[in-house]
Amino acid sequence: MTSAIPAKGMRDLLPGQVATRDWATARILEVYASYGFTRIETPAVENLSVLVGAQGGENEKLIFKILKRGEKLSAADSGELADLGLRFDLTVPLARYYAHLHASLPQPLRAIQIGPVWRADQPQKGRYRQFTQCDIDILGLGSPLAEIELIRATVDALAEVTLRSFTVRVNDRRILMALVTAAGFAEAEAGTVLVTLDKMDKVGVSGVQRELVGRGFPAERVSAFLTSVAEIEKRAMANEADLGWVDLRVDRGAVTALATIIRSVRADQATWSQGGASVDIRFDPTLVRGMGYYTGPIFEISEASYTSSIAGGGRYDDMIGRFLGRTVPACGFSIGFERLMDILEERGAAAAFASARTKVALLVDEALEDLTPVLTEARARRADGAVVIVEPRHAKNAGRQIFQLAKDGFTDGRVYRADGTAEDIGTTLRSKRAASAEGV
Amino acid sequence: MTSAIPAKGMRDLLPGQVATRDWATARILEVYASYGFTRIETPAVENLSVLVGAQGGENEKLIFKILKRGEKLSAADSGELADLGLRFDLTVPLARYYAHLHASLPQPLRAIQIGPVWRADQPQKGRYRQFTQCDIDILGLGSPLAEIELIRATVDALAEVTLRSFTVRVNDRRILMALVTAAGFAEAEAGTVLVTLDKMDKVGVSGVQRELVGRGFPAERVSAFLTSVAEIEKRAMANEADLGWVDLRVDRGAVTALATIIRSVRADQATWSQGGASVDIRFDPTLVRGMGYYTGPIFEISEASYTSSIAGGGRYDDMIGRFLGRTVPACGFSIGFERLMDILEERGAAAAFASARTKVALLVDEALEDLTPVLTEARARRADGAVVIVEPRHAKNAGRQIFQLAKDGFTDGRVYRADGTAEDIGTTLRSKRAASAEGV
Repeated sequence: MTSAIPAKGMRDLLPGQVATRDWATARILEVYASYGFTRIETPAVENLSVLVGAQGGENEKLIFKILKRGEKLSAADSGELADLGLRFDLTVPLARYYAHLHASLPQPLRAIQIGPVWRADQPQKGRYRQFTQCDIDILGLGSPLAEIELIRATVDALAEVTLRSFTVRVNDRRILMALVTAAGFAEAEAGTVLVTLDKMDKVGVSGVQRELVGRGFPAERVSAFLTSVAEIEKRAMANEADLGWVDLRVDRGAVTALATIIRSVRADQATWSQGGASVDIRFDPTLVRGMGYYTGPIFEISEASYTSSIAGGGRYDDMIGRFLGRTVPACGFSIGFERLMDILEERGAAAAFASARTKVALLVDEALEDLTPVLTEARARRADGAVVIVEPRHAKNAGRQIFQLAKDGFTDGRVYRADGTAEDIGTTLRSKRAASAEGV
Repeated sequence: MTSAIPAKGMRDLLPGQVATRDWATARILEVYASYGFTRIETPAVENLSVLVGAQGGENEKLIFKILKRGEKLSAADSGELADLGLRFDLTVPLARYYAHLHASLPQPLRAIQIGPVWRADQPQKGRYRQFTQCDIDILGLGSPLAEIELIRATVDALAEVTLRSFTVRVNDRRILMALVTAAGFAEAEAGTVLVTLDKMDKVGVSGVQRELVGRGFPAERVSAFLTSVAEIEKRAMANEADLGWVDLRVDRGAVTALATIIRSVRADQATWSQGGASVDIRFDPTLVRGMGYYTGPIFEISEASYTSSIAGGGRYDDMIGRFLGRTVPACGFSIGFERLMDILEERGAAAAFASARTKVALLVDEALEDLTPVLTEARARRADGAVVIVEPRHAKNAGRQIFQLAKDGFTDGRVYRADGTAEDIGTTLRSKRAASAEGV
């Protein structure tokens, strides 16, 4: 017998889980559409040359690679065995997509992508090897209006699926770079330094210090760097949002844009409050984000009751150039759809999303020859908006069948007998359902 | 520079294409839901042991295989290089899914699956290496009510997306088997004989005859077989649907069930006519279908103006047993979603699916410092149901920007100037739009 267990780290979704996902997806897409975003699609499979060297950080090590086929494989014994791979995010394929189709796309392009990505990570609770991402991106717009609209749309979308208490943290890669170089690190060392700084949440200041020294950086320089980070963090907490006080050697445009983003999102706080949601947006100089491809503002949203973030994004102005040969400004925000689903399921939200339609069961004695009356009733009830199933009546175990139907939410129905008569079973179904709901 | 072309046989979808797909998907799912079907999901990636030996016919040769990772790959140099594969259909994974989760699933399970499958086929016009299938299946129901509901639901779904003139052809694998053995072939030869018979549409009777003789079967036996097929086909065309005249050595239950299916679907013809659709259902003894896993009734739907079928399915009672160790009756119907999309696009249907919402463009002079009034208007218009974009006003090329917005369907808007005043551009947008629609 072949095992029925899904492949390692992969999973099957039950009807109720899919219903929650479909409910959330429809709500989120509706909000994004009102911001002018339209859905696009790229294939799950990309040439490896697209995925490798995409500055995707650790994710590039986790690519599921696809074996060459036929003659290509026979010819490959000394070289690469694989030529294709499953996408590990939706951003790298989007950059390729834009370069491929830009002449046929609106300018700027406001794209929604929702779909699976794959990473050959060590599976653990809540982390799967196939998972869904839900991204919006604005391609071809260098103005901070892009960041402002991305953040507002994402908060609106998360509020629409019943989340209520948001913290938005924003930073800019150029500010991080100024902190790193001011402490005496070389620009080429910035990647390593920032990836380590990103672990602050988990390992604390002393952990970051230890790891950087362990990597061979002078203890004195590491201390100076961490002190300046702590200093700017303290000042960020204390100061107003205009960021005029930021005295690093950094493009003043970057600082002004970040201040505009914070101020503009804050302007919406009153409206969100009226809808019952609270949104706190602030400059967080310790925010790093993992990907190497970010070039400007970066941002994350977390919800009050969960430590890790629910959505993250940033500006990646250099990525499309790799495929197009010229720079196109680009900026995106990605909802961690699986984490969102975990939260909604944890809150028992699924029951609330169940369809409100009447469920009708038409049961047929096996000996009934002419099914026309049954099928006619099924069609009429469906036209009235009901969900209708037609199935044989269990001759031997009729009580069990009725009990199960009541438990599955059927509250109306009829038994069609072999002699052509029909008996209403709605009352029975509703009383069994009431009993089952009371746990009797 | 890295190439922006998608991997061989894969494709990117433009916003308009995705809109058509989303429109059709929503309509089809709505119809299926009214029949009591609920959506489920399995992962795209399966253990190769699930995909190989699944009686998937030619498709098993077309599996995209995934390279082993890390130590597993190092240890594999003499053996299999791959351990996983991308699913080539949605039926084999569904059988595994049911065996895995049956204890938590409704009985019978009415499942909808819509999602991509992959086959490393030679790409050609209209055939891609990643394509979407849309399946409904009823698992745990041996009664012909399953086939009847699957066929009715699929016709309803196709009619809902504006198709109008259907031919449903039905047959039964047991009738085919009786024809094959009556002509003197061994049961073990049936697979080869039927796969060849399936090519009748393309190569004609003489082509089938030539191929079977070429495969080493006695010319006399091949002739006898093709004569009996032609004979039963002629009688099927001439006779009424009760199939009482079928005089093969075959389970009479199979013949009765097929007659019930035909009669019950015919009972709906008047209703379909009222909705403007015509449905012709008939017994076609030459219908084979490619997969080896079918065990009983098989069926296909084609639309008047297209020769090849749009949907196909059948009963596969033995498949779940491979994963569960006991037989579970199962039956499914799959819409060829890509072919359906080709038809809808060919008919220029996409324009009809465009959103009817007002599109509003708010353009902002770059020097404007306080964005609050713009963002407040955007929020208010979105709350009223409009699609609103906010973007910088092109200082140098304002005329071109307005023209492009009008072309993209924006009919209302405002320019926010640096001095805080705002100018309505709705009239301009609407007149440019009218001019653009007239091709001026």
